[in-house]
Amino acid sequence: MQFDINEEFKNLNHRLTDIWNNMLKQSEFIKALQGKKIDKRLYLIYLFETYHYTAHNSRNQGLVGAMNHLNSTGYTKFCYHHAADEVGHELIALHDIYELGVKENSFTFPKPLADTEVLIAYLYWISIHGNPLQRLGYSYWAESCYSYIDPLINKVKQTLNLQDHQLKFFIAHSKIDEGHFQEVKDIITKHCRTKNDFEDIARVMETSFILTSRMVEAVYRAYLDLAMGKPSQYAFLSDYVEKESVVA
Amino acid sequence: MQFDINEEFKNLNHRLTDIWNNMLKQSEFIKALQGKKIDKRLYLIYLFETYHYTAHNSRNQGLVGAMNHLNSTGYTKFCYHHAADEVGHELIALHDIYELGVKENSFTFPKPLADTEVLIAYLYWISIHGNPLQRLGYSYWAESCYSYIDPLINKVKQTLNLQDHQLKFFIAHSKIDEGHFQEVKDIITKHCRTKNDFEDIARVMETSFILTSRMVEAVYRAYLDLAMGKPSQYAFLSDYVEKESVVA
Amino acid sequence: MQFDINEEFKNLNHRLTDIWNNMLKQSEFIKALQGKKIDKRLYLIYLFETYHYTAHNSRNQGLVGAMNHLNSTGYTKFCYHHAADEVGHELIALHDIYELGVKENSFTFPKPLADTEVLIAYLYWISIHGNPLQRLGYSYWAESCYSYIDPLINKVKQTLNLQDHQLKFFIAHSKIDEGHFQEVKDIITKHCRTKNDFEDIARVMETSFILTSRMVEAVYRAYLDLAMGKPSQYAFLSDYVEKESVVA
Amino acid sequence: MQFDINEEFKNLNHRLTDIWNNMLKQSEFIKALQGKKIDKRLYLIYLFETYHYTAHNSRNQGLVGAMNHLNSTGYTKFCYHHAADEVGHELIALHDIYELGVKENSFTFPKPLADTEVLIAYLYWISIHGNPLQRLGYSYWAESCYSYIDPLINKVKQTLNLQDHQLKFFIAHSKIDEGHFQEVKDIITKHCRTKNDFEDIARVMETSFILTSRMVEAVYRAYLDLAMGKPSQYAFLSDYVEKESVVA
Repeated sequence: MQFDINEEFKNLNHRLTDIWNNMLKQSEFIKALQGKKIDKRLYLIYLFETYHYTAHNSRNQGLVGAMNHLNSTGYTKFCYHHAADEVGHELIALHDIYELGVKENSFTFPKPLADTEVLIAYLYWISIHGNPLQRLGYSYWAESCYSYIDPLINKVKQTLNLQDHQLKFFIAHSKIDEGHFQEVKDIITKHCRTKNDFEDIARVMETSFILTSRMVEAVYRAYLDLAMGKPSQYAFLSDYVEKESVVA
Repeated sequence: MQFDINEEFKNLNHRLTDIWNNMLKQSEFIKALQGKKIDKRLYLIYLFETYHYTAHNSRNQGLVGAMNHLNSTGYTKFCYHHAADEVGHELIALHDIYELGVKENSFTFPKPLADTEVLIAYLYWISIHGNPLQRLGYSYWAESCYSYIDPLINKVKQTLNLQDHQLKFFIAHSKIDEGHFQEVKDIITKHCRTKNDFEDIARVMETSFILTSRMVEAVYRAYLDLAMGKPSQYAFLSDYVEKESVVA
Repeated sequence: MQFDINEEFKNLNHRLTDIWNNMLKQSEFIKALQGKKIDKRLYLIYLFETYHYTAHNSRNQGLVGAMNHLNSTGYTKFCYHHAADEVGHELIALHDIYELGVKENSFTFPKPLADTEVLIAYLYWISIHGNPLQRLGYSYWAESCYSYIDPLINKVKQTLNLQDHQLKFFIAHSKIDEGHFQEVKDIITKHCRTKNDFEDIARVMETSFILTSRMVEAVYRAYLDLAMGKPSQYAFLSDYVEKESVVA
Repeated sequence: MQFDINEEFKNLNHRLTDIWNNMLKQSEFIKALQGKKIDKRLYLIYLFETYHYTAHNSRNQGLVGAMNHLNSTGYTKFCYHHAADEVGHELIALHDIYELGVKENSFTFPKPLADTEVLIAYLYWISIHGNPLQRLGYSYWAESCYSYIDPLINKVKQTLNLQDHQLKFFIAHSKIDEGHFQEVKDIITKHCRTKNDFEDIARVMETSFILTSRMVEAVYRAYLDLAMGKPSQYAFLSDYVEKESVVA
């Protein structure tokens, strides 16, 4: 099959636009963020789940280098450098949680929701098995997501009256990831040599995107359960919300 | 137990001097290098075995970061950066093999000797299990070995009439590893907090040193077998040695 | 917290009934099986995807024994014996595919659908990480599923006019799994000692069930795509269906 | 290359006889066992180190099945059944330690000696990498060792005045392993199809044998250190030896 890298990128971007559009249209989580009937527990649950999967991103990125005997030294180096860049990012999410007023050591640390654990499991799997290049599909959407989510974050910031020091995870990533996305595109350009490489990248891009979408929907359901007073590992968060702001 | 880092480093260096002195005294390989009755097949076998274990060093270093959920982001970053620095070094050993005249694709690539495989196995094991700091014990001797081995290399260079372009593996590492050794000492200083950390580092330093010593002795025995005409996977190397130079 | 094993089993069974009822109510795949507008391509796609995840079940079960340093020799032995029992079951799915007329080596073997891969990834993850007992949650529903699915299989058998020799995967498992389910209940009774053990089992039961449900829905969507003539890795299956039987 | 399985077994047995003869001739440990100047601390250290490596044998055997996607269901089943048979054998070594009078929980559990750890590391490595059949080389000598070591054990039993209930590890294995060895020969006969398979088995047989020999020599050195009053993690064992019996 003929291989035209510009066509492949065009196709990849087309598929990326599609999954974003579908998600933005269907997501209850997104709708809630755009409305006014939320309180900061939604943002806190989101940050806890983000803490969980982010704690593994550096590790599964490192494994792409370590577990695959790659012919390409350039891609392997990229994997390790990128892994190094991601080390400890979960601590920024944790920092924001504490900046929002949650008291350290005053609660049982919540376990990841099932959908968060599925995302974590999948990212390890595709990092260890199959085409070593395919994890770039995850980076491709994750490092370019800020054009889509910046407006949402601004909306939430306003609704919940958040300050910049409580939004460090997003502000930091929004800056870092601009450079990262260019690196990801460069590394794809340099190392993807077949239609199959692009197909593997596209598959991981779509699947990891969908699993992340399911995770944020699960965050929203956990928030609704909490707001309705159902039993929840997140019950302790209600101590940090003014009674009047709680959704009925 | 009281913990004095200067005492710990003194003890570590003392143990390092001991293992070097023992090795230099007992090694048949070293004696052969210092004599004149060798030909370049010894150096070539050494390079092939070096190719084998070096191909894993970046990977097991990366695994220290990826497999251990470390509290210390600084040490994890060091692991990934160090892994990135080591990527592809086995190709330098291969380059030297070809520069010595061995023709690419003209031979069945030799498998690692048993003692080389044992070294490889051990480095993975200590990278994945036990104290994540302990792999620094391997780096501690490996990155500081050039003061011991530079004189040996100069001697071999003279005996075998080698040129610099055939010694790239040693020349490159000799330079790189100076800086690396300082980094290793810094990272130990920063992250080792107990006598137990130093004990784990010392144990891995000694064990990986002994396994490497066994590997070089096995290289020498493989060379003797070859020189005596015994069946050997390295038989093809004899095509590259002038008949008169071969040991009886 | 007080721990009453009968209560725990009651709760587990209650949650199991819930997920089955939800699934049976909502599944488009199930509805299709109960109707008449299907052809054997649906069953074939199902068998290919079953081949894929089944090929990993013995392996991830074995890993529960091998990767966890368990105190309980009884549970570890169960894991290995159960892994041995599952070896090669994917070949029964393959056998049925060929019995349905698909010609060996006449097609490019299809890759797992994204949702199948997610299921595979999750089962490895929970086998290696977390409470070693939790994989029993997967066995708990998978080994007791035949009371729910036997009527469906009978329906499909009739609709597609299938013979027993084309249904070996289901017939074999239906028999084997009766005994297995009793063993699973016995091993839970013997080794689960806390509410937390049951909670971990319940979580894996529900999550692996949902991921399997998503897989069968994806099978159905792949069938619809195929029936509508969209490009598909399963296009070769259309050679095995009489033209008149194909859904418009 | 022509392949005659009887010739291959003959060659394997020849190499096995060679390594045993070399070992029996050179081992300081064996000489000590045959003499009278030992006390039960030697046997105890041996049992502790045996505890350590035995605790991993079931696990690395299980990994051969789980980590390799084998075409042969028969060999995979053998791996799991054999792993199940080995579960908990380290507890028999521990049982013997306590039967010899060592008081449970009265000491810091000794870490494996460096040579024991190298053996453990190697057995994992060859179980996960390379020809999946090669681990049979370890079983080949380990399951047939009792013709060599039974006379030694009888000698030690007499010298140290041991009772059968203090020798359960050896007595149990001596019986079990007769059947196991036949199974190992059967599985080799059934699954080894090339000279290369036998070569891989022979290599692992020899290397794992040598590493075990190094382990027992290290046990003997640890005993000598202890007898000479050098600092040792095994110092607590001296409480269990009558003063007069201690070697000068």
